[in-house]
Formats: sequence, structure tokens, C-alpha cells
Amino acid sequence: MDQSKRQNFTMLCDYYELTMANGYYKAHMADGITYFDMFFRDIPDGGGFAICAGLEQFIDYINNLHFSDEDIAYLRSKNVFDEGFLESLKTFRFTGDIYAVPEGTPIFPGEPIVTVRAPAAEAQFIETFLLLTINHQSLIATKANRIVRAAKGRAVAEFGSRRAQGADGAYLGARAAYIGGCAATACTITDRDFGVPATGTMAHSWVQMFDSEYEAFKTYCEIYPTNATLLVDTYNTLKSGVPNAIKVFKEVLWPKGIRNCAIRLDSGDIAYLSKKARKMLDDAGLPECKIVVSNSLDEDIILALIRQGAAVDSFGVGERMITSKSTPVFGGVYKLCARETADGTIIPKIKISENAAKITNPHYKKVYRLFDPENGKAIADYIALYDEVVDGSQPIELFDPDFTWKRKTVVSCTVRELQVPVFKDGKCVYTSPSTGEIRDYCAKEVDSLWDEVKRFENPHHYYVDLSQKLWDIKQELLKQGNK
Amino acid sequence: MDQSKRQNFTMLCDYYELTMANGYYKAHMADGITYFDMFFRDIPDGGGFAICAGLEQFIDYINNLHFSDEDIAYLRSKNVFDEGFLESLKTFRFTGDIYAVPEGTPIFPGEPIVTVRAPAAEAQFIETFLLLTINHQSLIATKANRIVRAAKGRAVAEFGSRRAQGADGAYLGARAAYIGGCAATACTITDRDFGVPATGTMAHSWVQMFDSEYEAFKTYCEIYPTNATLLVDTYNTLKSGVPNAIKVFKEVLWPKGIRNCAIRLDSGDIAYLSKKARKMLDDAGLPECKIVVSNSLDEDIILALIRQGAAVDSFGVGERMITSKSTPVFGGVYKLCARETADGTIIPKIKISENAAKITNPHYKKVYRLFDPENGKAIADYIALYDEVVDGSQPIELFDPDFTWKRKTVVSCTVRELQVPVFKDGKCVYTSPSTGEIRDYCAKEVDSLWDEVKRFENPHHYYVDLSQKLWDIKQELLKQGNK
Repeated sequence: MDQSKRQNFTMLCDYYELTMANGYYKAHMADGITYFDMFFRDIPDGGGFAICAGLEQFIDYINNLHFSDEDIAYLRSKNVFDEGFLESLKTFRFTGDIYAVPEGTPIFPGEPIVTVRAPAAEAQFIETFLLLTINHQSLIATKANRIVRAAKGRAVAEFGSRRAQGADGAYLGARAAYIGGCAATACTITDRDFGVPATGTMAHSWVQMFDSEYEAFKTYCEIYPTNATLLVDTYNTLKSGVPNAIKVFKEVLWPKGIRNCAIRLDSGDIAYLSKKARKMLDDAGLPECKIVVSNSLDEDIILALIRQGAAVDSFGVGERMITSKSTPVFGGVYKLCARETADGTIIPKIKISENAAKITNPHYKKVYRLFDPENGKAIADYIALYDEVVDGSQPIELFDPDFTWKRKTVVSCTVRELQVPVFKDGKCVYTSPSTGEIRDYCAKEVDSLWDEVKRFENPHHYYVDLSQKLWDIKQELLKQGNK
Repeated sequence: MDQSKRQNFTMLCDYYELTMANGYYKAHMADGITYFDMFFRDIPDGGGFAICAGLEQFIDYINNLHFSDEDIAYLRSKNVFDEGFLESLKTFRFTGDIYAVPEGTPIFPGEPIVTVRAPAAEAQFIETFLLLTINHQSLIATKANRIVRAAKGRAVAEFGSRRAQGADGAYLGARAAYIGGCAATACTITDRDFGVPATGTMAHSWVQMFDSEYEAFKTYCEIYPTNATLLVDTYNTLKSGVPNAIKVFKEVLWPKGIRNCAIRLDSGDIAYLSKKARKMLDDAGLPECKIVVSNSLDEDIILALIRQGAAVDSFGVGERMITSKSTPVFGGVYKLCARETADGTIIPKIKISENAAKITNPHYKKVYRLFDPENGKAIADYIALYDEVVDGSQPIELFDPDFTWKRKTVVSCTVRELQVPVFKDGKCVYTSPSTGEIRDYCAKEVDSLWDEVKRFENPHHYYVDLSQKLWDIKQELLKQGNK
């Protein structure tokens, strides 16, 4: 496959985006202005919040959106599409507006993460890739944030490329894991392209390649005296690996005046082995030697290890983070919420479902986060119609959209609109921060959540409420739809 | 990011592949010939076998393997690598031999799927991408094969792009799902590049875009009279969706003499709704109308639907297939099994672990599948040293490598070597079949397994045995290693 095909993701779309676009074209509806919201319904792993990520790649996608002559020839060969429609694809570009929550922001079910206002054919067409990139990176950033919080200040490195679901799973998964709070990655290309610090020392094969473990360690320390993390479990951790490591550290590093070093445990009972190894290292006069552990870790195992007093300085986390193994799907959806008539009137649209959780919030909306001005903590998110004024200096009445008798008035708060303009009339008006800046922002935003929301077990249900006006419109549409 | 960076996956490697390669270079070991095996340990979902996939993309990777000047400049900036090593990367190519099990073959734990014979630095370096691509596609092909077998002859379409873990998760996941037996995909780009038939009709947004469901259906059928699958659950499936579909089929399709049509159910109780809808369609004189269902399906739900007599003609399967949600990791590993001395003697290598299942099979090996000549069924897989003669016309004694008193003699069998040569001296000597050919081959090979191996619940444990010579060498190395 040639490179131009690989980079251009225009054709990475569900086929029905094309049959619908062709349909809108033939029904003379392709240019009607529509509004779509991307939102999600369930937080992975039963957590209290998710972390939004993937916007930068979505922006790249929109900027690169175009059909090549080959794409159009391929579509023509399907004998399904109108020739005028195929012709129109030659100049197909995104010409609408996009608003999105910045990467690294904690997000909650039901609120619009990305809102698109564009001609029907365009707004519809970008669905697949938008969902794909935001779902994937939000999934991994959310999982990484859980794991990093479980590690309670110890560094977590992302190690999972070999078990990722495809190249982008590794490449951009490592980016998302960094946004979620990881300190480093094993994925070299993600360092090259996003500045996520790459880390790594040796595999078991390095140790096996030599006639003895001692020789393998010695050679490594001679080559990398300032970056010597020795993998000690190829043969027998406590009988051979740790003693050989101690011997080599003293023989090779000490004469150079180097005390910083580390061992890595990758199998066996990590709690037991780390405590035993710590004692052996300390007894040998190597208190500076760090212990890195890996082997099928996740937030639950890390919490358990810490609870058992495992002597661990940092964690390498692989498959369970890079695939978010315990919840490997982030269920973001993209739904029509309004369309404009020819005179610019916005007609709200709803999707009704027998499953109440699947009923959508209609209309063109804006979402606000309300903060307590006293302590900076987030109180609730508030979804209002696009033209409502949300003023934190005035009392705002919040109520549960399902149990409307549950009400609370916020007398005074700091209000921040969550979405920012990303595209205006098809032109990108947003500059993505660096991945490191996003990571710092994410940590700060997570800090603004109450501990109750961050709890792993039965976290507090953070409020995402609708304005009275929006709630009324929704009820009215539900009544009409059920006629 | 520019396109050359995107296509060249050379830098998609764990950083330790580079630190080790630099280490081998500095220790003058980079050119020593080594043997590595890629194998896996556990079958996803507790199944009886896995399906191997991803080789074509691994071959592309090897053929494209090279460091750009930018890559080398980036590595130089790490201040870790020897200048001579960096210089050597300019001409770094793969020069060794690779043997691999063809895509679509049923595979079992512990047997070599890919075997690499190459200079140490090269054999080591390709680890990450080899594992990434084979793990990912084997995972999805295996899951798809389960789902397709559960559907008992009904077509299964892959619908999961929007929930895939990154672009390749969607793009190549759809390829792997087709290999595993899916009939079609929603992922357009996979049709364009691999000829996997793309399918898809409408989303809920199509229905919402019109003033009424009736009008949405009517417009669709007028545009696509020969491909009319109407999504009937936007408002109310039985009260509105199915009646409107029936009305439109009769009004639009019947005058054209078209009887083929379909409805899609995407929410609610599929067993109940499909039976009710079937009756309504039949009563209306539309027995040709097919019922397609989707909504968080997997093999368990499909089996349950069929058991309950759901009236389903075909399934659309999304997130649970494209992420293999119930087991989202395929745990293939890549281990050193031998190295050659300067005079060409092969020294077997083993990795010992406290976990017996993680002990590797040493030495340069070949793997054979033994078939019963009477019925063509696979009897067992047999791993022997590379230079042993395995002759099916002579009795072959099989024994359980753990419980060696369990023995069985196969008097006569058809023997097939599972791996085929893929690279010889760095040159590709293998032509990948088309994806359709791989799919057909896969179906045939799965047919060669006993039903007991294909069972979903507690499948029969298929035998993967070692030759006596190989077993003896392994025991000897274990004894030496535990000294």
C-alpha cells in the first residue's frame, strides 16, 4: 500500500456514511445545516469520571479530509453512487464549525464533548473517525489516570506496544497514557513525535544471549553505567538475579562513583520478591537501588501491592493499560440534535429509545462547569441552550433531570464553558497544546474534582444537569415522539 | 506529521530494542546468529484454538524496515547511543530468515508461530512490531471465528470501526474479522484495500433528518430500491418502525417488482422484537424481507438469541468483536531459543520461570500437524528439532510433555509442516494470498478440527507435543539452569 493511502483516513468511514451522504445529495438535503453531539454514556471501570483525549488527531483528520481520484474510482466501482455525488466528492471538504472539550479535561456521561455544526453530508460523514479517535484515546487516558492514581506518586511507565490493538493502538495509546499521567513510554515513535519520554533497558533475551547472567549484567552496566536497570528474573530472582546485580553494581558502578541503579522484577510474587530484594539490596549497601516492577499490572494489582507493603519504586504497565483490558471499549456516540431550516431557525431533534439512558438531549447546546470560588472544586456540569446566559454571579438552580424534585441552588460560582471553538467555517481556529502541556492540564483538572468523585469503589455520581429551558424542550419532544 | 513518518513503522519499537541493539553492537555481538520463536500461551475466551493472522502486515514491515535520517537524528539526541551504532542504522535492514504459519491457520499454545533466524541485533529489533501485528490480528480473527461459528450459517458483518482502538484497530481489525469468517465489514477503507465487502445503509440520524420516519424510509427506498435495509427503532420499533417499513416497501418497491428488502433492529429485546417483526412482515406478505440485528452482540448473545428462536437472518457485530471485548489481549511472546557459535553450532537457550507455563521450548524447531488420513481430521501438533525427520508412514509416539506417562502411538498419518519460508537472507520468498483466499483457507482448516476442539464450553485440549529429543534437551537445560 502506498503512503498517501495510509495517511489519508478519509476512507476510514463506515460505508453507511457514504450511502447516507449520497442519499442527502440525491434528496437535495446535503447542504442543510445540522447539529451533531458526540457524547458518551458509561464511565469505564465504573469510575467517577473519564479523561477526554484524541482531539489533536481529529483535527489532523479534518484538515486532511479529501477523496483521492482512486477513492472516487473505487466508489464508482460499487455501482451504488450517483455520478453527480461522486463528482462532488472531488472538492469535498469540511466547511462547518466544531466545538470540543480540550484534551485532558475530566468528562462525564451525557454531556457534549464535541459539537459539530455543518451541512448534513459533511457532519454525517466525519462520524466514524471522530468517534474512533476520541473513543480510543479517551479510553486509554482514562485507564492510565486510574493506574497513575493507584500508584500514589510512584512513576508509571507505559510498556504495552506489543499487545496493543494495532499500530495506532500502540502509538497513540502511548500518547493518551501520557496525557492520563504516565511518566514515560516504551514506545519510541511516540517519544519522537510527541515528546513522551521513552524508556527501557533489557529483555530476558539480553540475559540469555550471554553465557551467564553475571556476564550479561556486567556488559550492560559497562555500556550503560548511568542507566542500569537489570532484569533479575530470567533464571531465579533471589538466588541468582539479585545477587548478580549486586555484584555487578559494586564491581562496575561503584568504581565510577555511581550509586544510582535499579533492578526490574517481571514475574513471581511481586509483593514477596520486592520486599526480599529490598532487604538484600539494603544489606549490601545499595539503598539507592530502585525496584521497578512489571507483569500484568493494573490499578487493582497496584493498589494491592502497595497495601501489602511491596517495596516498589516504579511500575511498568503493559497490556492492561494499552488495551484498557477490564473495559476495552469507550462507548462514545454521535447523534443528530438539531437542524436548521432555510431561514436559520434551529429545529431540535431527539432520538427516543425504549432504554431511557439512550434518549438523547436535543438542540444546539453549550456545557458549563461550575466551580466553587472558595476552594476551586467542581460543583456540577450544566448543559444549557446555546443562547442562554449562564452567569455565576446569579443563583443557578440545579435539578436532577430524572428525579426533578431533587433540587439545589448554587448561589455563587465560577463558570467555565467546557467546549472551545476548534473549527470555524471549515478553518481550524485552535492550536493543540503540546502533549506535556495537556498532561499538566489534566493533572490540574483532576485535582479540581472532589476525592469522592475520584474514589475507585462506588464513586460519587457527579452532577450533569440540564437547564430548565432545555429540560422543557426535551419533555415536549418526548411527548410528541410518543404520540 | 508527514506521510513518510506515518508509513514507516521502524520506530514503532520498544525503546529497549534499541538499547539492546546498541549494547550488542558495543559488545561485538550484533552479528551473532540467533533464533527467536513467537508463540502464545493462552487461547482467548477459553476457546479450543486460535486463528493466526497479521503476517501480511509483518512482511510489509520487514520490507520497509529502515531508519530515516530524522530517526537517527532523534536517537542521537537521546545521548545514549554509540556514534558507530547510529552510523550502522543508516544501512540497517533485515538480512535473516523468517518462517511463519500462514494466516488463517488454527494455532495452539506453545508452538512456534513465527521463527526468526538472524543476526542478534536484527532478530531482537523486530520483536515489538512482530508481536503487535500478529497479536492484534490473531486476536480479532479468533474472536470473529467464534462469533461466526455461533451464528450457525447466518451472515455476520463487522460494524465496529467507531469503537476500535485506533485507526489500525478498525482498518486491519476488519481484515482479520473477514479472515475469521465475517461476510462483510462497515469499514470502507478495508474494502478498498483488501476487498472485504463493505456494507451499510443508514443511521438513526438519517431517520431523524426528515420530518417523519415514513418520509425517511420512502426517500431511502426511492434512492436504493435494490439495497433497502431500513433501521426501524428510531422512535418505536413495533408501533412505528416496522409498519412504516412495510408501507414503504409496498409503495416503492413492489411497483418496481422488487421483493428483496430488509429491516434492522438495533435496540430493545431482540429475541422478542424479531419474532414480532417477522410475524408482521409475513402477515403483510413480505416473507422475503430479511431481519438484520445489531447492538452489543457477541458469540454468547448470538447463541442465546438463536436458542430463543429469534427470527434473525444476519448479524451486525460491533465493539465486542473489533476489540475482542471479553478477552482484549492476545498474549503472544517472542523468546530467544538458540544462538549459533562462530562455527555454526546451534546452542539451545531456555528461559526458566517460577511459573512452569512460562518456561520456553529451547532450540531451533519445526512444528508439524498430524492428520488422520481416513477423515482428514487433525490429530495433534508435533514440535521437533529442526533436523529431525518426521515421517507419517512410520509410527510416531506422542506423549504429554508434563505427564509423560500419557502416551499414544500414531501408526500412520499425513504430516504437514506448519511454518512456511517467508524471508530467506532478508529477501521475501512468500506471496500473501488474497484476503478472500485466506478466509476460505481458514474455514477449511477449522473444518479439519474435531467438533470437541471447537466447542465453546470446556473445549477438548488439543495435543501439542514435543519430540523425545526436544523434550530431553529441555529437561537437561532445566536441570543446568536450576543448579
